[in-house]
Amino acid sequence: MNARLNSLDMPVPDTRSEAAARARQQQLTKPPGSLGRLEELACWFAGRLRSPTPQISRSEIFVFAADHGVAVRGVSAFPQSVTAQMLGNFANNGAAINVLASLEGCRIEVVDVGVTGDPELPRGVRNERVRAGTRDLFSEAAMTDDELTAALSVGASCAREAVQRGAQLLIAGDMGIANTTAAACLICAFTDALPEQVVGRGTGVDDVGLARKREVVTAALARARAAAGIAGPAVMQSGTEGVAACRQLFAHLGGLEIAAMAGLYTEAARNGVPVLLDGYISTAAALAAVRLEPGALPWMLASHRSAEGGHSVALQALGLDPLVDLRMRLGEGSGAALTLPIIKAALALHRNMATFAQAGVDGATS
Amino acid sequence: MNARLNSLDMPVPDTRSEAAARARQQQLTKPPGSLGRLEELACWFAGRLRSPTPQISRSEIFVFAADHGVAVRGVSAFPQSVTAQMLGNFANNGAAINVLASLEGCRIEVVDVGVTGDPELPRGVRNERVRAGTRDLFSEAAMTDDELTAALSVGASCAREAVQRGAQLLIAGDMGIANTTAAACLICAFTDALPEQVVGRGTGVDDVGLARKREVVTAALARARAAAGIAGPAVMQSGTEGVAACRQLFAHLGGLEIAAMAGLYTEAARNGVPVLLDGYISTAAALAAVRLEPGALPWMLASHRSAEGGHSVALQALGLDPLVDLRMRLGEGSGAALTLPIIKAALALHRNMATFAQAGVDGATS
Repeated sequence: MNARLNSLDMPVPDTRSEAAARARQQQLTKPPGSLGRLEELACWFAGRLRSPTPQISRSEIFVFAADHGVAVRGVSAFPQSVTAQMLGNFANNGAAINVLASLEGCRIEVVDVGVTGDPELPRGVRNERVRAGTRDLFSEAAMTDDELTAALSVGASCAREAVQRGAQLLIAGDMGIANTTAAACLICAFTDALPEQVVGRGTGVDDVGLARKREVVTAALARARAAAGIAGPAVMQSGTEGVAACRQLFAHLGGLEIAAMAGLYTEAARNGVPVLLDGYISTAAALAAVRLEPGALPWMLASHRSAEGGHSVALQALGLDPLVDLRMRLGEGSGAALTLPIIKAALALHRNMATFAQAGVDGATS
Repeated sequence: MNARLNSLDMPVPDTRSEAAARARQQQLTKPPGSLGRLEELACWFAGRLRSPTPQISRSEIFVFAADHGVAVRGVSAFPQSVTAQMLGNFANNGAAINVLASLEGCRIEVVDVGVTGDPELPRGVRNERVRAGTRDLFSEAAMTDDELTAALSVGASCAREAVQRGAQLLIAGDMGIANTTAAACLICAFTDALPEQVVGRGTGVDDVGLARKREVVTAALARARAAAGIAGPAVMQSGTEGVAACRQLFAHLGGLEIAAMAGLYTEAARNGVPVLLDGYISTAAALAAVRLEPGALPWMLASHRSAEGGHSVALQALGLDPLVDLRMRLGEGSGAALTLPIIKAALALHRNMATFAQAGVDGATS
């Protein structure tokens, strides 16, 4: 077995560069450990970018947009029309993620994986529509297996293209009215958490809407589990059979943009390129990706903790501890883009600070 | 009374700009509240920078360095020589704060307020030595009242000069072996917290050193309180008498660099310019500043929560909730400088995102 591949032919981080980075951190002119998580970040990227002094000169953002049949159940505070309208806003650089991408000098691409409405897309938006929104997951499978495969492939293609352009870190963002309902279903299905722990207000649904959303998720879970031959909440099986069941749950409960994000995450890992997760939708997609391909996990870094309570359930299931908690819950990749400067600062400190020897500074006496 | 001044002739934030910013946040193309603390930041700066759409084009960092007589008590993991050596490291751009200042394009000035050792300073370091380190606060007053006044003035001068250069946000950082002992004394004195809650390992003192540090702080507090005519732990009095007692405690227990930071904070407030606090030392200085001039508080923003446990005691006493917790405990202003991009992002989002009307996006239905 090749040292850089795990049993599923996924690359694994370079432990030698990671160890070299850890040793360097002990030499820099600061009390050992005093840069806290910034030190961990530098070592993490050393392993992923295969360099003891890594730097990120190119990071890219993809925003995947799609509609959700379940929107008809009244689970969102916003009308479904907003998904298509936001494509125009992205195209005109008016959305939050545009502002953040511009600050960080990131290439940003907006990909329509399945928005309903006008087939003519705003200039600059990439048409990869698999179908005009998912089916209503309350009453039937959101996607067929073929549609799931197609949506996963959209994300995988985006990842491959970014890697070819030299990207060293990828961010996937989401846009899709009602997609917190699909994400809640996936998080429940893939962690066995209860809908009460996972379903939140999303963009700001009221009490009646929240109750309806919980009912929808509960019913959808029962339906999907029955279809996938899973008796009830049960820790995911591993092995081929487990993966097949996970695919079924994903097709039944997911969203086209969520599948594209999952496809991007697994393909980035397959290319040995790290991804920076965003919030609730992104982490649901990451969880799905890891259930399908466990080797994707070491390539994932959590950026922020979303104000959507159930986000923590998904993060915990992945064993990820996000960098910041700023009570954001916007999606689009905004939380991830916001933490990019922290990552860049961690790498710059690691690379550019003087060592005790270089600076002629005494070390600790004890 | 002028609307922009409070009872102590300190400027107060502009509530009209703050309200206008709050109204604008409701119009931007995102679910209301979904940018969490970034929305609060934009409104906070609107009030301080007196504009409904504020931007920060110039921020400056001052690193104040000084030595502490109490270092002879063995309260630090590093020898006192490191303070002077680090001046050289700052001058050569090798320290953490240099790297961060460079990333953010901030002017940085290193000010020697009282380092011991070689009187010839490295090129670029500003000589404002009040005396060669404080006296040992375990056995006597660290500073005389005149020395405290002189150190406060150093910081105040720096603030005034920065304001004249057009700075819209100031950061003060610290360098001084043993200064977490002085800061712990001040936090205890100004909050009535017990040394057990406030004294931590600083740069990494071992168990024996930690116990010694607690004893030193306990004894120094008793001595300083007796000298200031305070019977024991007691919530600070307000009014002229309370301020006089606070000055005495500050002189007995403080540090020259801590006093300079406090002087910078109050003078920035007096000029209506906000300050971004750093960690443990910085917040002890802020607490002292607010005890001397309560009107300085509305101009203070907390950047990060330090890994030094007692930091939270000081933050709570000021009613401040920091933006991030990255387990940093380095000082130098590093935590503050690290969060600058988050603040800039919050202001850019506020200024540059499209409104629902501009983008033709529907608002919430409920």
